[in-house]
Amino acid sequence: MLSRFVAVALLFACVAGPGVAASPAPLDGPLPDGQQPWWPSRYGEEDQIGTLNELTPAAVRAAAGLVRRGEVVDLGRVLDGDTPKFPGRSWHQTVDVSAHLVNARRPDAGGAGWGRNAINWITEVQAGTFQVGTQLDSIGHIQIGDRFYNGWTTKQVVEEWGINRFGMETVPPVVTRGVLLDIARLKGVARLDKGYVITVADVEGALAAQRVEIRAGDAVLFHTGWGALYGRDNEQFLSGEPGPGLDVVNWLYARRIAVTGADTWSYGPVPGEDPARPFLVPQTMYTKLGLFGLENLKTEELADKQVYEFLFVLTHGRTRGSTAAVVAPAAVY
Amino acid sequence: MLSRFVAVALLFACVAGPGVAASPAPLDGPLPDGQQPWWPSRYGEEDQIGTLNELTPAAVRAAAGLVRRGEVVDLGRVLDGDTPKFPGRSWHQTVDVSAHLVNARRPDAGGAGWGRNAINWITEVQAGTFQVGTQLDSIGHIQIGDRFYNGWTTKQVVEEWGINRFGMETVPPVVTRGVLLDIARLKGVARLDKGYVITVADVEGALAAQRVEIRAGDAVLFHTGWGALYGRDNEQFLSGEPGPGLDVVNWLYARRIAVTGADTWSYGPVPGEDPARPFLVPQTMYTKLGLFGLENLKTEELADKQVYEFLFVLTHGRTRGSTAAVVAPAAVY
Amino acid sequence: MLSRFVAVALLFACVAGPGVAASPAPLDGPLPDGQQPWWPSRYGEEDQIGTLNELTPAAVRAAAGLVRRGEVVDLGRVLDGDTPKFPGRSWHQTVDVSAHLVNARRPDAGGAGWGRNAINWITEVQAGTFQVGTQLDSIGHIQIGDRFYNGWTTKQVVEEWGINRFGMETVPPVVTRGVLLDIARLKGVARLDKGYVITVADVEGALAAQRVEIRAGDAVLFHTGWGALYGRDNEQFLSGEPGPGLDVVNWLYARRIAVTGADTWSYGPVPGEDPARPFLVPQTMYTKLGLFGLENLKTEELADKQVYEFLFVLTHGRTRGSTAAVVAPAAVY
Amino acid sequence: MLSRFVAVALLFACVAGPGVAASPAPLDGPLPDGQQPWWPSRYGEEDQIGTLNELTPAAVRAAAGLVRRGEVVDLGRVLDGDTPKFPGRSWHQTVDVSAHLVNARRPDAGGAGWGRNAINWITEVQAGTFQVGTQLDSIGHIQIGDRFYNGWTTKQVVEEWGINRFGMETVPPVVTRGVLLDIARLKGVARLDKGYVITVADVEGALAAQRVEIRAGDAVLFHTGWGALYGRDNEQFLSGEPGPGLDVVNWLYARRIAVTGADTWSYGPVPGEDPARPFLVPQTMYTKLGLFGLENLKTEELADKQVYEFLFVLTHGRTRGSTAAVVAPAAVY
Repeated sequence: MLSRFVAVALLFACVAGPGVAASPAPLDGPLPDGQQPWWPSRYGEEDQIGTLNELTPAAVRAAAGLVRRGEVVDLGRVLDGDTPKFPGRSWHQTVDVSAHLVNARRPDAGGAGWGRNAINWITEVQAGTFQVGTQLDSIGHIQIGDRFYNGWTTKQVVEEWGINRFGMETVPPVVTRGVLLDIARLKGVARLDKGYVITVADVEGALAAQRVEIRAGDAVLFHTGWGALYGRDNEQFLSGEPGPGLDVVNWLYARRIAVTGADTWSYGPVPGEDPARPFLVPQTMYTKLGLFGLENLKTEELADKQVYEFLFVLTHGRTRGSTAAVVAPAAVY
Repeated sequence: MLSRFVAVALLFACVAGPGVAASPAPLDGPLPDGQQPWWPSRYGEEDQIGTLNELTPAAVRAAAGLVRRGEVVDLGRVLDGDTPKFPGRSWHQTVDVSAHLVNARRPDAGGAGWGRNAINWITEVQAGTFQVGTQLDSIGHIQIGDRFYNGWTTKQVVEEWGINRFGMETVPPVVTRGVLLDIARLKGVARLDKGYVITVADVEGALAAQRVEIRAGDAVLFHTGWGALYGRDNEQFLSGEPGPGLDVVNWLYARRIAVTGADTWSYGPVPGEDPARPFLVPQTMYTKLGLFGLENLKTEELADKQVYEFLFVLTHGRTRGSTAAVVAPAAVY
Repeated sequence: MLSRFVAVALLFACVAGPGVAASPAPLDGPLPDGQQPWWPSRYGEEDQIGTLNELTPAAVRAAAGLVRRGEVVDLGRVLDGDTPKFPGRSWHQTVDVSAHLVNARRPDAGGAGWGRNAINWITEVQAGTFQVGTQLDSIGHIQIGDRFYNGWTTKQVVEEWGINRFGMETVPPVVTRGVLLDIARLKGVARLDKGYVITVADVEGALAAQRVEIRAGDAVLFHTGWGALYGRDNEQFLSGEPGPGLDVVNWLYARRIAVTGADTWSYGPVPGEDPARPFLVPQTMYTKLGLFGLENLKTEELADKQVYEFLFVLTHGRTRGSTAAVVAPAAVY
Repeated sequence: MLSRFVAVALLFACVAGPGVAASPAPLDGPLPDGQQPWWPSRYGEEDQIGTLNELTPAAVRAAAGLVRRGEVVDLGRVLDGDTPKFPGRSWHQTVDVSAHLVNARRPDAGGAGWGRNAINWITEVQAGTFQVGTQLDSIGHIQIGDRFYNGWTTKQVVEEWGINRFGMETVPPVVTRGVLLDIARLKGVARLDKGYVITVADVEGALAAQRVEIRAGDAVLFHTGWGALYGRDNEQFLSGEPGPGLDVVNWLYARRIAVTGADTWSYGPVPGEDPARPFLVPQTMYTKLGLFGLENLKTEELADKQVYEFLFVLTHGRTRGSTAAVVAPAAVY
């Protein structure tokens, strides 16, 4: 019986499933913006995890050694209905207490729950785009035209249920050395201005002032102060942001960091360095470099305590085919 | 203008919001099953994080010292539409590639994307109960009758958008020492039987065989072998499970562990020790002890490698008022 | 194999399913507000459709005779993300064009679609509470304490998936005579004030001025002018509303109408006649009388054209266990 | 303040909104399958409602005259979690009784509800693709390659929130003459075979046997008997279906009917007349002709009663940009 259903189901299913495409589709014309093919990536054509390849055992061991006090700082913001959201993004939750009523009428209900132990439970329903709040993007989130990291195309990658490459199920846990760069402090302000482009000189200045260095495998986090607007003035928060410029990203990539992030909603400066090329920084990171990014980090506590070097840990729900996960990384020092 | 809206909104909003109730509601009759009030908890009446109070700086420091090789093992299962689910639980994801079409018709579209850089992006919509897959439950997930941990009642705790106590936003990151107890190996089987009750003697036997011990603040994980059915034979997987008995939970609680988990869907044995009291083990853990539980852990790799002691890290999306989070903890050794 | 799954599924399922409860739960104490039991209803204890019992063949035949010109007027508002919503209510839609990409890579893709005919399709994902927009409520939507129409209790009626009595699947299509009462016109205003209580004298005045009468089985619709704010000033729209008072509802019920509705979000006046008894009008309608109500009707066109008597048709998606349906009835004259 | 938010929101919003595109995109290459442009349609290039243009006042008036007995037959199936669904389609509902708990703790709670009248309410959350159950498709649901009805392209029509042409908000209520063609009865079987192609001769035979004729503006419904499998054997139901062939559709279109439907999930035969051209019948109907289709009609009762001519009424929730609505039309005779 099942076979009949499966036969028709196959009519609708993707015939060429995950992994079937042997290689990125050949070029069928010039790439946008005069680009030359940027693939294969530093980590090979089949690679899906980009700079997370830098998470070597040596880096993990070294990072564990940074735990001196045993303090844990939460870097995630709470996600609720008041979270700043752009049009098209949504998140809604409804509690489900129906079990209390259903259990209460079971033949063996004890008191007002199931069994002599009167057990009850509460769940919830969530619905939304999970590109909200503190998030870890997959490098499959952004494209240049229809080309992903390593040159795969939308036509090759998209399934109805998600993306068959670069989904969050491919993203490993991140346990590595973390560095916080407090650029607001460096500049002597509580909050960098919207559109401020963080430069390599800023990064070098902060490293010197903070007496830390960047190493391969690092998680490099930026404190711009912009995140203080999150949940306090969502309009202004979403109206733009300061962020690392393209030079900084290339500089970090050259140093083989694993992941970078900031206390802003899109990492790079908005408006950007080139108004004709919106969101060029994360686009370059994800699509060309395979460099992972974190958004909406809650960096205030680390900045206040001047904790600039720590064990960075980030585990996330591994939902298949997703382009992001709502997360809350932690800094351990 | 806004004030008018707010005025009416208040008609619908919970007048007694989070934290307003000063103390658990007084008893208005006997508790189910001849129970005496189990509150205040070991950590006080206002406590919301139960045994996660054991995550002390000393425990964190000691745990970091367990990283010797720098290997990271993922303990989470991939969540997709084929995940085993009980009636009433659901999870569905749809990819959203509409931005590719919308961007392509912007006045400044470059190639087939926004701007000269032809940027595009892909997101997804998820909808479901997040009580599926590898999950960390909040201790607010289960009740005895209408009483939660520390005696708070459903009427005090439920909001339309979630629970105002014990939501996942209250649950801190977990960074501590992890211990895996391979009870299947102890018993010389690939998989314990459904309904098998793991005893204190089993735990002590495994600890002796594995030459590890339990310490305060630990994450204690059980490998029963049952998890091998996950995604392979969902029917059988959901038809029952082996698990620690009530004695084990009390024994672990006495040793002040922080969290426990297993490669099964509900931690305790199903059918349980007392058929008249379903799911008594997690009910006792969450409601009476405030002991956190993890479900559907992927413990195979650790068991195969005989890694029994490690740094356990678990960070999760902090969604307000949720009773669980889909997670994928990691073991670092 | 299935039997094993079903066995466990039953653990979670409602043991006492729809229809099992033989009669409303006996009283276990006084009813709220000094109420005496209001059941059985005019239509009997087992009845689920209240005043829709008045939709007799004779009424349907007579209504069909009202179609003289063959014009059809849509009485529904378009539902989108800008629809006025109270806290806790939500509705979100995302288009799904993934099939275009999946089809394009089928082995037999013709051009950029499936088969030689290059078929493609577009769907959408919706998530939300369907208590938004123009809606037909089920009489199961509102309770007095925990008592529904005919005295059934929440404990008897609630399932995880919906309500096992009074769900929208029980509500028949509505084809009957419609009457529009233009109370704004009667009062010589474009829009009645917030909190204005429409009286029986108003109804009788409008009937006389409009030269129509109320008959058994009618759909009686009120034009208050308040609906002009819908989508134009959602704040003010939701801040209150004019509406029929309790006397009008009882007067209509005595005349055995089938359904009533208005161009407002909750039918009755807000603030209501008795501030200590919020939403008393719809509560009385649904819970005590079983009188069906329609909200957010787009009555402007009928009022402008002074069409006061017509064939009223309303069909709705029959989702099991729902308390409302998003609808768009039509007036045919 | 708002202006700043709006400014950034515009970055993300579709710059070329609904209606902006002045005409269908010019051809940029040959159409799939050797097609010539099929636009403009019979109803003009700007038309969005295709054959529903045939719903003239004269047709409506004539249809109303068909009501002789005043009986109303529901043609919709109940939608719930057991509804047959293809991969990628979903529908899930959870009841929301949280208001009972929130209301019970308001300062002015009377008994266990809000106010002295102790009002409470129940709602539900639904999430899914609404291409399930008894449905009315928009003609924007299907394409040939990336071309819609009237030649508009996916790039012109898709928004994040839905389609900006052909959405369900454009579809008027349907009130017209209905005709049921019982092809199963004509063939002397309870159920036509999967893949059976209903011919023009079949249609003419049924019309003669049933002594009815087709007129402009009609809703022409087919009873194949296949619908008896719906909800009883979903596997077999979805494994294929009988249905009208392409000739029938063209024959009906020539007679200027308004809408057609069947008791099957996709109207046309599956497997189809030409296995290399899947779902050619609905594709032709929607994309080339603008002929509306109804799926999963519950036609048994009309067939049993031999009611072949009736007033057909169909109103639907007008959700903006949707490609379908879950409906339950009614036949009145």
